[in-house]
Amino acid sequence: MTRDDLKTLIRTVPDFPAAGIQFRDITTLIADGRGLSATIDHLARLAPPGTASVAGIEARGFIFGTALAARLGVGFIPVRKAGKLPVETIGQDYALEYGEARVEIDPTLLSPGEQVLLVDDLIATGGTALAAAQLLRRAGARCDNALFVIDLPELGGADRLRDAGIASHALMDFAGH
Amino acid sequence: MTRDDLKTLIRTVPDFPAAGIQFRDITTLIADGRGLSATIDHLARLAPPGTASVAGIEARGFIFGTALAARLGVGFIPVRKAGKLPVETIGQDYALEYGEARVEIDPTLLSPGEQVLLVDDLIATGGTALAAAQLLRRAGARCDNALFVIDLPELGGADRLRDAGIASHALMDFAGH
Repeated sequence: MTRDDLKTLIRTVPDFPAAGIQFRDITTLIADGRGLSATIDHLARLAPPGTASVAGIEARGFIFGTALAARLGVGFIPVRKAGKLPVETIGQDYALEYGEARVEIDPTLLSPGEQVLLVDDLIATGGTALAAAQLLRRAGARCDNALFVIDLPELGGADRLRDAGIASHALMDFAGH
Repeated sequence: MTRDDLKTLIRTVPDFPAAGIQFRDITTLIADGRGLSATIDHLARLAPPGTASVAGIEARGFIFGTALAARLGVGFIPVRKAGKLPVETIGQDYALEYGEARVEIDPTLLSPGEQVLLVDDLIATGGTALAAAQLLRRAGARCDNALFVIDLPELGGADRLRDAGIASHALMDFAGH
């Protein structure tokens, strides 16, 4: 399946989670066996040589990140919401449209200089991805690459990551968020 | 890697999330590339013939469930916490030690009679898994099989699933929860 085929499997839900927002829903893509496999194939082809582990952002980043890590034969590092990991963590706050959120990792899961590939289902403003990348770097890992299934380019997330030294790719984009 | 090898990669965290509980932590297993791959290999060997899709329970069930679905070439059905899915859902409440929780699915992702394999990281009392299986059945799917990485057999979850007509397997068990 081409990337254009995969795009037809995305469901658009109007006015979720708020009026005026077109929610791009990946559940219809992953519920399709051929769609899920092809998505992981495409992501694997974009993974940089030397990738030592994949980090995925809770919860939809777990879906694509772990399947990609298993395909590449590397480990998976969960970037979790606050309070979910059972051990001492490091955390990073970041701004949402309204209020703040926080992501956390267990830094002992990473080796110094290890090249970590960041994965999430969708990049919008890039705030969550940037916070996750900062955390991975604070833990001593390298995080210079990120992959997404969907990019909403008008929201500028890829530019924001590039400014932080992170090259990103997405399998498809949707104009008009 | 054998199942015994995989068991050595599980980290035990004392007194989490409450005093007296030995938390069996899978993050150290999945952060190990060989451990993650071998876990998915073992789960794939236990998947019944005719499995049409894999359902995973948020959030750690997403980790193993999606990688398994991608390996088997079938679709993945997310069983989510309340309020996370962007479309009309069906939900099932279930009892926790203190209070209640709820899981939800989008029934339109399932075909009538489709054989769904339920996956989660750990089975304790089986309450969450049973609620998820009931939901899948209410959506018209068959759910007769479940796989877990870890079983805490003293808590009786596998027996409870068996009483509901669900055969379950785990890659390892820990006595003394």
